[in-house]
Amino acid sequence: MEKGADYLDVNVATGQGWHQEVKDMKWIVEEVQHAVDKPLSIDTADYRVMEAGLQVHRGMPFINSVTAEPDRQEAVLELAAKYGGKLVILPVRENIPPNADERFDLCGEIQKHAYKFGIDRDNIYFDALVLPLSVNNKNPQITLETMRLIKGAGWQTALGLSNISYGLPQRRILNRTFLVSAMTLGLDAVFLNPLEQGIMGTISAGKALLGEDEMCMNYLKAYRQGKLSDK
Amino acid sequence: MEKGADYLDVNVATGQGWHQEVKDMKWIVEEVQHAVDKPLSIDTADYRVMEAGLQVHRGMPFINSVTAEPDRQEAVLELAAKYGGKLVILPVRENIPPNADERFDLCGEIQKHAYKFGIDRDNIYFDALVLPLSVNNKNPQITLETMRLIKGAGWQTALGLSNISYGLPQRRILNRTFLVSAMTLGLDAVFLNPLEQGIMGTISAGKALLGEDEMCMNYLKAYRQGKLSDK
Repeated sequence: MEKGADYLDVNVATGQGWHQEVKDMKWIVEEVQHAVDKPLSIDTADYRVMEAGLQVHRGMPFINSVTAEPDRQEAVLELAAKYGGKLVILPVRENIPPNADERFDLCGEIQKHAYKFGIDRDNIYFDALVLPLSVNNKNPQITLETMRLIKGAGWQTALGLSNISYGLPQRRILNRTFLVSAMTLGLDAVFLNPLEQGIMGTISAGKALLGEDEMCMNYLKAYRQGKLSDK
Repeated sequence: MEKGADYLDVNVATGQGWHQEVKDMKWIVEEVQHAVDKPLSIDTADYRVMEAGLQVHRGMPFINSVTAEPDRQEAVLELAAKYGGKLVILPVRENIPPNADERFDLCGEIQKHAYKFGIDRDNIYFDALVLPLSVNNKNPQITLETMRLIKGAGWQTALGLSNISYGLPQRRILNRTFLVSAMTLGLDAVFLNPLEQGIMGTISAGKALLGEDEMCMNYLKAYRQGKLSDK
């Protein structure tokens, strides 16, 4: 949080079953919000664990996430409608669609369900899905093209960043470079490690260059606080 | 050149008049090409100095640059037609147009002249003009929007990078961040300082992410050669 994160993502998937995860999620949400007075991103694939976190969370969380998988979709949308919060939508059914058009179509499908549950458009973030560059040379471009389509529809986008560099050396250079590409196309939210060298300086510079930092005030402030260093 | 530059930009503007610059340009082109067997970017606003460089240059140079200023335009286009080379077109008349539409219109105007001189489309690079972020918060976005229009017309783009960060601290962070934004929109050529910390690693990462490095072969090679470091 001191490095500039707006939310902290909490995940308790340790493979001990959902009963344990329900307890763990309650515990971690309370402990973390006791330590830092900031909202969290409640990160789970299980709606029961999600509800456990939402019940004790204070403020406006990220609900991370809902997919088009039939056994999850309705339950998580119901929780989003009941508890409020920002909702991350992953365009995934059984598999991750291999191309941008199919991912975008699936976004539209889930979005229709979300609207039925009365979830506000401004609270929805579509994740364009980051798969590793090392697995397929085209993966970064598919993600960026998905983002272009989502932004073209006037919707908000999110990304989980670090997967892009999985299996390659000097991951932080790939991470921060891909982040700038996504910011250039209008990225609205990103899940990343703010402790990674250089990443928060990149965000400060990107915001200043892309018109989100009037008079470079935040960039200059980050400089004075020693937050722009790569070291 | 060891850092990975494809061309070296040479400029002899020392304020001693064009007679002296003609001599200096001949000298520097010969000396540099004697030391490194690579093509150069001949960087001058004076067509007589340009011709002096072109006469002794070996290989395919960058002719840097031509503008819409009436006293320069025809003379430089004639040289480009006579000697060959890649031509940088700056959309500038008496002033730099303040917005992207006017810059793009001026590109089209100069391009028509260039075609009349028989200059091949593939050898033309339109410079979207980088003005400092510190002077006007909107400058980077005007440049990027100009690039979008130029790329939308199917033309090639170039940028002189470092001007973006003039007057601000930690310039290399702004430089490399803006470079990635421009690469994301399809930048074809860039004038930069390859000795600047982190810049060549950013280019390697950007090319891998944007589909210009099959199987990440060049990224991995750069890593093995220690060229990805920020230090």
